[in-house]
Amino acid sequence: MPNGPTLTADILRKDGFGEEKMFRCFVADDNGRLVGYALYFFNYSSWEGVNVYLEDIYVSPEYRHQEIGTRLWKSVAKVAAKKNCKRMDWVCLGWNTSAIEFYKSKGSINLTADEEWNVFRLCGNALKEFAK
Amino acid sequence: MPNGPTLTADILRKDGFGEEKMFRCFVADDNGRLVGYALYFFNYSSWEGVNVYLEDIYVSPEYRHQEIGTRLWKSVAKVAAKKNCKRMDWVCLGWNTSAIEFYKSKGSINLTADEEWNVFRLCGNALKEFAK
Repeated sequence: MPNGPTLTADILRKDGFGEEKMFRCFVADDNGRLVGYALYFFNYSSWEGVNVYLEDIYVSPEYRHQEIGTRLWKSVAKVAAKKNCKRMDWVCLGWNTSAIEFYKSKGSINLTADEEWNVFRLCGNALKEFAK
Repeated sequence: MPNGPTLTADILRKDGFGEEKMFRCFVADDNGRLVGYALYFFNYSSWEGVNVYLEDIYVSPEYRHQEIGTRLWKSVAKVAAKKNCKRMDWVCLGWNTSAIEFYKSKGSINLTADEEWNVFRLCGNALKEFAK
């Protein structure tokens, strides 16, 4: 896996705002200054159809503790509710206990802890090799 | 969460083969009889852009142990490789040790075991309540 982002601004423009939208986002703005974003896309369940996956939320350090992240998260939840999605999914690292407590306080469930969901990945040369 | 699928054939037709493709799939066919499928979609990483998520693979019981599942999985991996995706992700339940051994034998990594990835979900009334 890479040690940091490999995307360029041009790729993000094309993928988010071009003809075929590969992701969607909300941004938080302070008088024209971009101070946060939530990046999401629609995923698909063979049981329940279209749902929302929240890929990333970011708030600039000096703008934290003002509920900006919560409002971004809520904006994405509103999209899910409006589209009659059954659910919104995301991933959180296990050491991030303050985030986990927050998510649980909103009624979220931890599918890894409760139902043994393990996330697997095939990438890099292993992916190329398997695809041969 | 539901106890079983809530999708109808009409919804699947629209979402997979209509104007806006919410999922894609490969099928395995035995002289016109559908005996398996792999359902996938494109997800998005804010680090790496477009990737493939493998939602579901199914093979009819009487057609198992003939490598049909592996071939379906490989077909999806080929899409990822062709599109220059950096990775293919999926979820596996922790008790399914034979699947996990198989995945590992192909070079897959378990992000939950290795990096504490926990899958979270907000659904049903908790989602509606949070979206208010």
